[in-house]
Amino acid sequence: MTDQRIYNFNAGPAALPLSVLEEIRSSFLNFKNSGMSITEISHRSSYFDGVINDAVKRAKRLLKLSDRYHVLFIQGGASLQFAMVPMNLLSKGETADYINTGTWSTKAINEAQNMGKSVHVVASSEDKNFSYIPREISFNKESKFVHLTSNNTIKGTQFSDFPDTGGIPIVADMSSDIFSRPLDMEKFGMIYAGAQKNLGPSGTCMVIIRKDLLDSVNNDLPAMLKYSTYSSKNSMYNTPPCFGIYTISLVLKWIEEQMGGIDKVEEHNITKADLIYDHIDASSFYKATAEKDSRSLMNITFRLPNEDLEKTFVEQASKRGLGGLKGHRSVGGCRASIYNAATMESIYALIEFMESFEKENK
Amino acid sequence: MTDQRIYNFNAGPAALPLSVLEEIRSSFLNFKNSGMSITEISHRSSYFDGVINDAVKRAKRLLKLSDRYHVLFIQGGASLQFAMVPMNLLSKGETADYINTGTWSTKAINEAQNMGKSVHVVASSEDKNFSYIPREISFNKESKFVHLTSNNTIKGTQFSDFPDTGGIPIVADMSSDIFSRPLDMEKFGMIYAGAQKNLGPSGTCMVIIRKDLLDSVNNDLPAMLKYSTYSSKNSMYNTPPCFGIYTISLVLKWIEEQMGGIDKVEEHNITKADLIYDHIDASSFYKATAEKDSRSLMNITFRLPNEDLEKTFVEQASKRGLGGLKGHRSVGGCRASIYNAATMESIYALIEFMESFEKENK
Repeated sequence: MTDQRIYNFNAGPAALPLSVLEEIRSSFLNFKNSGMSITEISHRSSYFDGVINDAVKRAKRLLKLSDRYHVLFIQGGASLQFAMVPMNLLSKGETADYINTGTWSTKAINEAQNMGKSVHVVASSEDKNFSYIPREISFNKESKFVHLTSNNTIKGTQFSDFPDTGGIPIVADMSSDIFSRPLDMEKFGMIYAGAQKNLGPSGTCMVIIRKDLLDSVNNDLPAMLKYSTYSSKNSMYNTPPCFGIYTISLVLKWIEEQMGGIDKVEEHNITKADLIYDHIDASSFYKATAEKDSRSLMNITFRLPNEDLEKTFVEQASKRGLGGLKGHRSVGGCRASIYNAATMESIYALIEFMESFEKENK
Repeated sequence: MTDQRIYNFNAGPAALPLSVLEEIRSSFLNFKNSGMSITEISHRSSYFDGVINDAVKRAKRLLKLSDRYHVLFIQGGASLQFAMVPMNLLSKGETADYINTGTWSTKAINEAQNMGKSVHVVASSEDKNFSYIPREISFNKESKFVHLTSNNTIKGTQFSDFPDTGGIPIVADMSSDIFSRPLDMEKFGMIYAGAQKNLGPSGTCMVIIRKDLLDSVNNDLPAMLKYSTYSSKNSMYNTPPCFGIYTISLVLKWIEEQMGGIDKVEEHNITKADLIYDHIDASSFYKATAEKDSRSLMNITFRLPNEDLEKTFVEQASKRGLGGLKGHRSVGGCRASIYNAATMESIYALIEFMESFEKENK
C-alpha cells in the first residue's frame, strides 16, 4: 500500500492503476502545459483531439481492430446500451437472440422486449441460479445478432470462449472484462463496456461497432441515441465526457507500455485468479459459488460457512485495508473483484488474510 | 496566474475555481481517508452517498428549491435532454411551446419534432440572426410547458428575466447560466444544465424537475431515458458519473462558502460583464454583437474591424496567457466566456490586453 491506499476489491467503480492516478494528479492543474486542467480544456481543441485519438488508436491496437470497426465513447453506461442496441440494430421484422446469464443480461432482454422488439432467449442459466455459462446453444439463423454478457460481476461467471453462432455477429456487454484478454474480433459485431471496471471512471461507455451494422440504423432516432451520430463526429457531436476519455487513454497506455500488451494482461489475470481459486478449492472453509468451468477471472464469488462469518470476514478485511469484499447486495456472500489493475501484492494480501481468518474462525 | 495557469475564457468545458481543482488534486489518491481515489469508490458506499447528497442539498439550498423538486444527475449532456424532455413530458395529444433563440433551442425543437411531438415555436429571433431575446410572446393556453434556452453561448444573448407564461411551467436549458443568479423557481417546471460551463467537468447534466411533471411519464420508456428512474433511485439506478457529481458538489460548496451565495455570485457576474461591455461600448474598435437589452453576462461576443484582426487578436491573446477567445466556429468573431469561476483578475487582464491591442492596431 502506498500513501495509505487500501487493497481495493470493489466491483465497480474499481481500482485503477496507481501510475495512472498519479499522472492525472500531477497534471491536474496544468494539462500538457496548456495552463488548464483536463477538466477545463475545450473538446474542440488540439489538446483534446490528441487525447481522444490516442484512446481510439490504443483501443484499436490492443484489440487488433480492423478499419471495419468504430471505437466510440457514449454516456449512460451499459444500461443505456441495453436500450440503444435494439433501438439501433433491430428494425421492424428483425429478430435477435439473447443469452441470459444473470442480472445484466436480463435487463438487456427486458429493455429490448419493452420496446416491442422481437427477441429470443436462446439459452439461460437461470435454472441453476446463474451459476454457469450455457454451452451448446442453437441459434436462430435469421437472427440479426446474438447478445450476451461476457462476464457476470454478480455471480462470478464468465464466457471463457465465445459460442459459434454460425456467423451471426455477437453483441457483447463486456463492461467487466474488456481489455482483460485478447479477442477474436471476427465473432463480434459490437462490444460495449461501461468504463468503471477495467477502463476508467464511471460515466463513459466504450462502444466498438462494426461499420456495416450502422447501415440499417433508423435515421429518425434522437441524435444522442443513434450510433451514427457518434461515428460521424468522432464521439464529439456534443461535449463528450472528457475526463473519462482522458483516463481511459491513460489506462490503455498503461496496458500497452507498462503491462506489455493484452496477452500479458491475460496471463497476469489468469495467474491472479488461479491463486485465489486454488486457495478456495484447497479449503473446506471457503466455497466458490460459480461452476468450475464457468468461473470468472475478474470477479471471484465465494461463501463462508455462514452469513455471520461472512459479515465478520468483510469487516475484519476492511480494517486490515482490504476493501470491497462484500458480495453484491442482491446475492450476499463475498466477492473479490480483481480487474486488470488489481496488483499481485493485493492478491497475496487477500490470500494471507483468508488464511489467517480461516485459522481463527474454523 | 498560478502554477503557469492561463486566463481561461473557454465557452465549455470552461474554467473551474482553482480551489476546487486543488481540492480534487490533493485528495485524488485518497478520498476522505478511504484509501481510494474518488474514481475508485463504489457508488453504493457511504462515501459516495455523502457526495451525492451533499451536491443535492447544496443545489436545493442555493436555488431555494422546495420539496416539490427533484435534483437529478443524468448523463448525455443537454443534447440528450432535448430528446428526453418531449419523450417524458409530452404525451399523445399534448403540445408544448418553444422559444427559438439560436442553435441550442433549434436543436431542442428539432428533436421534439423528429419524435413526432406537437410543438409550437411561439417566438424566434432568427429574423435578426439570433442577436436578441424575443419579448411579448403569446403562449398557447393548452401548452404543457414552455421550453427556452436561458443563455445562448454562441450569440451571447441571455434572458435577463423570464416571460410571464400565465402559469405554464417553463422548461429551461440553463447549461450556460445555472447558478449564475437567483431564480424565481415558481416559474419553472424543469431546469437542465450540462455541467461543463458553470458546474463541473463534462459528462454530467443536472436536471431539476417538479415532481408533478413526472406523474404522466410513459412507463414504457427505456429505464435510462425516464426521469422517474433517476428520481426513484437518487440518480443511482446504474453507476452515475461519480467524478462529475463530486466536482459539482465542490463547485456548489465554493459558491456557498467562498463566494458567499448566489446573490453575491450574481453581483460578481454583473460587475465582471459590465467592465467588459463598458470597455467595448467606449471603443469604436470593438463591437458587441448582441442587442444591448439581450446581452449575456456569461458569454461576451464581439467583433473587431475585420477577420484578420480577429485572428491576430486571438493569437496574441493566447500568447499572453488569455485562452479561448475565439468565437464559436459557426459564427466567427471573438467571445469571452466569463462564467462563475472567471476571476476579476482575468477580467482585468482581458481588458488590459484589449486596450493595448486596440492601440497597436487601430
